Amino acid sequence: MINKRLREIRTLMANRGINAYLVTTSDPHQSEYLADFYKTREFISGFTGSAGTVVITKDEAILWTDGRYFIQAAYELSGTGFELYKMGVPGFPTVTEYLLNKVPVGGKIGFNGNTISFKLYRELLEALDQRMLISNLDFISDMWKDRPSIPSDKAYVHELKYTGTSAKQRIEKLRDEMYRIDADYNLIAALDDIAYLYCIRGNDVAYNPVVFSYALISKDKAYLYIDEEKLTDELNEHLEANDILVKPYDEIFEHLKEIPGKSNLIFDPKTVNLAVINSINANVRLVKTDSIIAKHKAVKNSTELDHMRNAFIKDGVAMVKFLNWLETGTPTGTVNEVLAAEKLNWFRSQQESFVEPSFNTISAYGENAAMPHYSPNEQNPVILKPSGLYLVDSGGQYLDGTTDITRTIALGDLTEDEKYHYTLTLKSHISLSDAYFKTGTTGYYLDAFARLPMLKHKIDFAHGTGHGVGYFLNVHEGPQSISTRFLDVKMEEGMVVSVEPGVYINDSHGIRIENLVVVEKVEKNEFGEFLGFEVLTICPIDTRPVVVDLLTDDELKWLNDYNKRVYDLVESHLTGSDLAYLKKATEEVKR
Amino acid sequence: MINKRLREIRTLMANRGINAYLVTTSDPHQSEYLADFYKTREFISGFTGSAGTVVITKDEAILWTDGRYFIQAAYELSGTGFELYKMGVPGFPTVTEYLLNKVPVGGKIGFNGNTISFKLYRELLEALDQRMLISNLDFISDMWKDRPSIPSDKAYVHELKYTGTSAKQRIEKLRDEMYRIDADYNLIAALDDIAYLYCIRGNDVAYNPVVFSYALISKDKAYLYIDEEKLTDELNEHLEANDILVKPYDEIFEHLKEIPGKSNLIFDPKTVNLAVINSINANVRLVKTDSIIAKHKAVKNSTELDHMRNAFIKDGVAMVKFLNWLETGTPTGTVNEVLAAEKLNWFRSQQESFVEPSFNTISAYGENAAMPHYSPNEQNPVILKPSGLYLVDSGGQYLDGTTDITRTIALGDLTEDEKYHYTLTLKSHISLSDAYFKTGTTGYYLDAFARLPMLKHKIDFAHGTGHGVGYFLNVHEGPQSISTRFLDVKMEEGMVVSVEPGVYINDSHGIRIENLVVVEKVEKNEFGEFLGFEVLTICPIDTRPVVVDLLTDDELKWLNDYNKRVYDLVESHLTGSDLAYLKKATEEVKR
Repeated sequence: MINKRLREIRTLMANRGINAYLVTTSDPHQSEYLADFYKTREFISGFTGSAGTVVITKDEAILWTDGRYFIQAAYELSGTGFELYKMGVPGFPTVTEYLLNKVPVGGKIGFNGNTISFKLYRELLEALDQRMLISNLDFISDMWKDRPSIPSDKAYVHELKYTGTSAKQRIEKLRDEMYRIDADYNLIAALDDIAYLYCIRGNDVAYNPVVFSYALISKDKAYLYIDEEKLTDELNEHLEANDILVKPYDEIFEHLKEIPGKSNLIFDPKTVNLAVINSINANVRLVKTDSIIAKHKAVKNSTELDHMRNAFIKDGVAMVKFLNWLETGTPTGTVNEVLAAEKLNWFRSQQESFVEPSFNTISAYGENAAMPHYSPNEQNPVILKPSGLYLVDSGGQYLDGTTDITRTIALGDLTEDEKYHYTLTLKSHISLSDAYFKTGTTGYYLDAFARLPMLKHKIDFAHGTGHGVGYFLNVHEGPQSISTRFLDVKMEEGMVVSVEPGVYINDSHGIRIENLVVVEKVEKNEFGEFLGFEVLTICPIDTRPVVVDLLTDDELKWLNDYNKRVYDLVESHLTGSDLAYLKKATEEVKR
Repeated sequence: MINKRLREIRTLMANRGINAYLVTTSDPHQSEYLADFYKTREFISGFTGSAGTVVITKDEAILWTDGRYFIQAAYELSGTGFELYKMGVPGFPTVTEYLLNKVPVGGKIGFNGNTISFKLYRELLEALDQRMLISNLDFISDMWKDRPSIPSDKAYVHELKYTGTSAKQRIEKLRDEMYRIDADYNLIAALDDIAYLYCIRGNDVAYNPVVFSYALISKDKAYLYIDEEKLTDELNEHLEANDILVKPYDEIFEHLKEIPGKSNLIFDPKTVNLAVINSINANVRLVKTDSIIAKHKAVKNSTELDHMRNAFIKDGVAMVKFLNWLETGTPTGTVNEVLAAEKLNWFRSQQESFVEPSFNTISAYGENAAMPHYSPNEQNPVILKPSGLYLVDSGGQYLDGTTDITRTIALGDLTEDEKYHYTLTLKSHISLSDAYFKTGTTGYYLDAFARLPMLKHKIDFAHGTGHGVGYFLNVHEGPQSISTRFLDVKMEEGMVVSVEPGVYINDSHGIRIENLVVVEKVEKNEFGEFLGFEVLTICPIDTRPVVVDLLTDDELKWLNDYNKRVYDLVESHLTGSDLAYLKKATEEVKR
């Protein structure tokens, strides 16, 4: 089947004189998860992983993907005519290196500009000197006969009682900023930016409660481009009340053509696609800007935070019930990784205003947990045993908040190494959670706070320490992050981030302890303005693997205080064995 | 007198149609300290501080300086016709804001391009849109009749037994890097870069053992531009043996004119002045590059490090003798801040191969120590009393190393606050000194390690945590530093930096504890390559102010281990009361 598709696309390429055709894993809004309609890279290559890039030439077809998918990709590509190029492995050229080598000077590289971000386009343009980029070639649409339809679920209002500020207020705040930088128009394609700005939600992207749309803000008008079938009376009323003008989704292209020359149009090149930019009149001034809405969205208001605190208690109740179920069931040999993930989702679904999981649960027993991005094997799920560590990284979308939590649980006897690494992870977790820092501090600087105790033991982990989190929106949200990659983004009061250090030992065990925290003001004194964190996540941290002698008095106090706070907030929602489990799990640890 | 000079320079300005004349505090090599010959800003304004910028217009004369000098500058400028503009204080325009406001479009701004770095010139050019910059106006030379002469001290060889690698080898290493980036010429003006590259030293700049010179490296030639009177037979022999061609200092201008067009010439715009760049043929390709030599110089070789270890023991011996003298003398009321600084310098001068202090000693008692850059009042020196804290920040230039050390000493009873702040400073000092970190870590990331324990107590300090240090060269040396300002410079094995956190309480007390450390390899394992620090500075850290309960077991162990190591390395060099002092000062602290 894939062979046939390759033949077909090569015919289309030949007809248009195209030397290489590029297919990325993306939709027109650079969403983290793809609707089936946009799984073009999977259609053409047969590879079903979540990340990858395809280049097809007259006689070669290459798929690039990263270390998470080497085994799966090799299996899925075998016999298709595709070759696997391993990203990050020496000896394999990058996509641009490959194109530069394969496409002669003056040659043509084709792709669908609708799903290529303007940023990627500029990078290709710079790297692929003297080659022609043909951006309006949507060969896959021509070929894909039984293509799934674009999601047509209804969009809905995220009510003012949840959002705290109205769409009108948010648009005004955006306009204030546009005024300051002399912008006449702001073109927005990032779905979570639009959902936040207009206080709307939808069901078009898995795990992210967003709706396919574009937005355009001028000095006095606010437009929403959306498929008519997604609208309801209630939504129309809301949009009208907030002075938002509704246009059909595809009309963005025509409408952008009408923007008068000499206007300043700002857009974020990371999320706006090339096709919409190409539809803009050539003498409009295009100004690349990091999303202003992302900065506003990142700072949660007091209404949002109050609701989030409530959502985290509900999430904690679900987690405790799940952990009780897990630990009761494991000794019977009936619990496997897949069942556990499903059960956890079920416990969450019993909580008020639950909508969906916020991402695909990582449910990993023993050595599987050594892979930070592990997905359980659905066909042949691993059964949990009453020994060693089980790691579960999961989250929920509630109308009143998005959660993301990782706990690593002792299911029975542990090795000395498991305890040692668990305690180091906990030390790193506390080191950051319990820190104060100055106004103006970046996430890169804070990353050092988390790693310091672990590095002291010559141990480290190969992923970020934390990411921004949305409010009933995407679980991964910018602009802030906490990682070893420097970004000039300062932590601000009201920003929510995850704190999730870990230790991973190949073929043995993996540990991660993750809470969400919100930046709060602590004190202003002669030395400056100090910020700190309020921990939002409410769920016991397992104390059984802790080597108490490795903790300082301050660290031990933090652990006991935290578990006590969990008990106080959750106990009234539990009864019977669940309550007994909570009591035991939050018992004070003594030296 | 200043009034008369202002009238004179305004006549010169009027004759050339100049709207504003700019005088910076700098020499042609952007040295940290100025020879008297280059104190043009002092000549024109009467202000004697170490930092400041002057702008003179038809009817105004302004001096900008920073907070260290507000009182002194106000005093020295009074009645001169100069007005003080306070840097960093709201309400005062910056130099460029002032120029933009005062000089009309098409107006002329004059200065001496010989002492303006190319970097500053580009910044002025960008900021002062539509004004003309006239860079060849050396009005001060025209006016200054009794000007001191340029230093004419002899230069000398830094022998191979000290440097470990020869000038020839260092030039070859530089050429390898030039080849890699396709550079035909490297123009060098930074005096410490030249001193390092050619293994020469001199006496032209206070505290920095360097010699006024330029260097030019081509693919097959190495030139040194230097005044003939600085040369000796021994030096000439050394230069010849290392294939270094000697030319008169001023011939650089003529010689640069001869560089053929289309050549690639690299230079560091931070240290190369505008005048030399202007003498280069217009079709030579100028490529701005951070100094390659600075990167090589920053990484000390094993010969250099072995010598440094020895220099630090000598420095420790001098420090212990000084501290014993200080503590014995203070109760008699005969020790003052100035005397103490002189005495410390004398103790250093008794050590083998001592050359000069590495900077002006900060000798500060009580509340004076709250000013991190304090200079004692020579006229009316403050007398030390047997109570409170005394801070001394000093260093020496030895043929076998440059030292820089700060100790804060309890001269008698301390307040609870003094003890608390001393202990926090010590915790911060240990937190960084005792840390491990990964290859690729920046000084900005490491800064977080130092501040973490202090920030936990909502306390911070307003200066950098550490700076690079030369090897019998400048005590402040790049490219690495440890501070809250992000610089993309990675710490490498062999780099020497200071670790100097502090706490400063206005009108009360000031604390700083400073050691120099060198980056060393620690371990390579499955988690990556780990680096750490070897402490170079050898001198007891005062334990009397330590609040032991605030230290963790690890911190207490570090302190005791450090002082024990100091004892072991220094005791054989001391006798009598000095040895008794060392014994007491390095006694183990117990809970």
